[in-house]
Amino acid sequence: MAHERFLYESISQQLRNQIRSGTYRAGERLPSVRRLSQVFGVSINTVVQCFRQLEIDGIIDIRPRSGVFVASASAARHQPTTVTHFPSLPVEVSLSEDILHYMEPHMEEHLVHLGIALPAREIMPIERILRSLREVTRKHALQAWDYMHPHGHDAFTHQLARRSLNYPVPITQEDLIITNGCMEAIELALRTVTRRGDTVAVETPTYYGALVALEVMQRKALEIPTHYRDGMCLYTLEQAFKHGRVSACLVSCNAQNPLGFTMSAERKRKLVELATRYSVPLIENDIWGDTVYAGNALPAKAYDEAGMVIYCNSFSKSLMPGMRLGWVAPGRFHHRLRELKQISSITTASAPQLLMARLMESGFYAQHVQQLRRQLAVQTRETAAAVLEAFPAGTRIDTPTGGCVLWVGLPNRIDSRVLFDRALTNGIHIFPGNVFSAGPRHFNYLRLNAGTPINARLHQAINQLGEMARAF
Amino acid sequence: MAHERFLYESISQQLRNQIRSGTYRAGERLPSVRRLSQVFGVSINTVVQCFRQLEIDGIIDIRPRSGVFVASASAARHQPTTVTHFPSLPVEVSLSEDILHYMEPHMEEHLVHLGIALPAREIMPIERILRSLREVTRKHALQAWDYMHPHGHDAFTHQLARRSLNYPVPITQEDLIITNGCMEAIELALRTVTRRGDTVAVETPTYYGALVALEVMQRKALEIPTHYRDGMCLYTLEQAFKHGRVSACLVSCNAQNPLGFTMSAERKRKLVELATRYSVPLIENDIWGDTVYAGNALPAKAYDEAGMVIYCNSFSKSLMPGMRLGWVAPGRFHHRLRELKQISSITTASAPQLLMARLMESGFYAQHVQQLRRQLAVQTRETAAAVLEAFPAGTRIDTPTGGCVLWVGLPNRIDSRVLFDRALTNGIHIFPGNVFSAGPRHFNYLRLNAGTPINARLHQAINQLGEMARAF
Repeated sequence: MAHERFLYESISQQLRNQIRSGTYRAGERLPSVRRLSQVFGVSINTVVQCFRQLEIDGIIDIRPRSGVFVASASAARHQPTTVTHFPSLPVEVSLSEDILHYMEPHMEEHLVHLGIALPAREIMPIERILRSLREVTRKHALQAWDYMHPHGHDAFTHQLARRSLNYPVPITQEDLIITNGCMEAIELALRTVTRRGDTVAVETPTYYGALVALEVMQRKALEIPTHYRDGMCLYTLEQAFKHGRVSACLVSCNAQNPLGFTMSAERKRKLVELATRYSVPLIENDIWGDTVYAGNALPAKAYDEAGMVIYCNSFSKSLMPGMRLGWVAPGRFHHRLRELKQISSITTASAPQLLMARLMESGFYAQHVQQLRRQLAVQTRETAAAVLEAFPAGTRIDTPTGGCVLWVGLPNRIDSRVLFDRALTNGIHIFPGNVFSAGPRHFNYLRLNAGTPINARLHQAINQLGEMARAF
Repeated sequence: MAHERFLYESISQQLRNQIRSGTYRAGERLPSVRRLSQVFGVSINTVVQCFRQLEIDGIIDIRPRSGVFVASASAARHQPTTVTHFPSLPVEVSLSEDILHYMEPHMEEHLVHLGIALPAREIMPIERILRSLREVTRKHALQAWDYMHPHGHDAFTHQLARRSLNYPVPITQEDLIITNGCMEAIELALRTVTRRGDTVAVETPTYYGALVALEVMQRKALEIPTHYRDGMCLYTLEQAFKHGRVSACLVSCNAQNPLGFTMSAERKRKLVELATRYSVPLIENDIWGDTVYAGNALPAKAYDEAGMVIYCNSFSKSLMPGMRLGWVAPGRFHHRLRELKQISSITTASAPQLLMARLMESGFYAQHVQQLRRQLAVQTRETAAAVLEAFPAGTRIDTPTGGCVLWVGLPNRIDSRVLFDRALTNGIHIFPGNVFSAGPRHFNYLRLNAGTPINARLHQAINQLGEMARAF
């Protein structure tokens, strides 16, 4: 093992150097895996892992059935700055103070809100949703008033289960537990399969809420290098699984926040295979799943034959944040998770379940998310263009595949925490990149919300931000 | 200590024997504390503790400023059957299977529901509540749709804080955290101040949901003898506090479920004093507080100068179970509890907060609970009368001071678990007494819901139950 690791790192470094020195140029094809294995005298597998690492670092592009190419200038800029990708160690998270500080302004009406990740009010069918809510409370007054069964409202869970009919392994109605939003689902999942002091594998960068959950629950984070397009490095993840370093893995496969990637079906399947092979529960946060622009993005759960995936989702991003209605399909961990849910809040509120049953039955929800996807695709593209125009050279954005956030890489000299302060002074709320990792990473990144259609005020704010960035 | 304990138990036993043998008869006055301390050659304090114990066991009545009397026949029937009150030991709870079994039928429409503790739909202003919900979603559409600040909706928390203006120590708006019902509040409180393996002092009998919470969270229960009229034995509780045997105490001071007592202001104050003196957090479940028939029952929190009380409440019993809207005032434990809340569900749903702000501002809620109290007082009295008439001699009920449940003591030969089975076969759902304790207690008790106004169907069901009980 140690020898292989040494080889692997040494070869990666040699290839890196050759690309940097111009031996291989942007767009040029690298020698084949077989050829390199002969050149370096290592196994094919070792070369494949080198390639995987270089791809994660944004140095090469692996194009199926075409070969391996030196990444174009745009992608090559993804080369990490302060990140040492391999090996990483479990760390205690200590971010909550920072995050509270950065979240603080998010409810202030007078600011330009580029911080929080949420589609804007104006593109959401608020009146229609609330009208339907009024209708169900009129039509099903007793049910709206009364406790719901802890299993959830039957018509609602029926609709939820129906969403998975095209999965290779569909979710059954019996496996569903209704929660107060996706975060309750994730927290219950973490409490179900991990204990204080345990380590959980997470993407880096990942949703800061997941990191705070680990902090508050005193779990450690093992940050797995995460490719801006492919997701977690499955090689590194497997090493962690194999050596029993983690009790669970928390992952977003669709429109991941903040990177915006959607994993390929093949990689989702592989991920579930690893979790199953090494018996490590996978906690899947699919909150952005319905917003994948291409539509029909299956979650990893879709391939979960062994029940190792605890699938978490809600309507907070796709329909109505104030509803706090989520759900979890815990697979083989159902019993314990349901126990924890029942003591933590007995059951979930009734009216929202009646509402969602209606909006799904009628086809309204499906229609709405289709429209929302189109809208968000346009907004993220337009916002990204505006940012790239306003910001200094060296700024990089990969167009997300779903959701409504942009992960903006800034030239190394710019510390996004300082930018946060300056922006706030100027009435603009952004989220600095450092809170998306427990470690000292991503300082020169910021996350921008593209949930609002570009307008003059936004344009101005983005230009102001660009000027501030240039001033560094 | 050991010597004192020995004396205490020995003297209690002698007095018990003298009462049993008829030396002192029902209604007769016992010698004074001073006299008995001379007779037995023990301290006044020891005699006082004996009296306290005998009172808890229902053998004597302590009448302030009159003296100590042998309990009347009715009260003497409270003599425990399988209960050894002192000393009790921390035990692991293992009730959840039983409770799920007994709860299972509670959603079945065709049954006569005497199991669950809840005012009936027909005495609740359901249409009015839902109309107001519709109004607020129309008037405050954006707020209803959006996330609420984790602090809760300002107009709502303002109203909640106002409720406490007549407390010696009012609750401040800043201390409030909004939760998904009272159970989330209690669970967060337990997670805030206790750890796995810790012991929590509870009443016996107590709400089974609290016991399940301890079980699921792997906390032990120390059951403190609880008087049917006065609540927890503060002497025993103090011993537990003094010897560091518990990390927290979970208590209901108003219209306790299932006993229906309301502690005196003096005892509430004493309870808080003990918690403060020994630095043991008090988790107060005040979910039935608004239903105390006499009105204006202050919680123990009202006397909480040191911030040792974590006060939990909701509107599930007094207004609308399906709303899942609770709150907690955690005092000095605010910071940690808020952390746990924020990761567990980020924030609480918006529409219910807007609704409650409105119902409280307008005075409707206050008016409603006044009416509810009157109604429940009548119902519990009438249901108790019907039960006493139908059930065999030796059946005992103490009229509750609030809420809508009756704690029915049956003659020893009747096992309420068997009665549960027989009742269910006959289409009647009741709750057997054994699940209100982690230990082998209360088998010959059952809890009946008096939330529904007595009608022919109920009368018939009660008569059927009575016949089944007689058949033992």
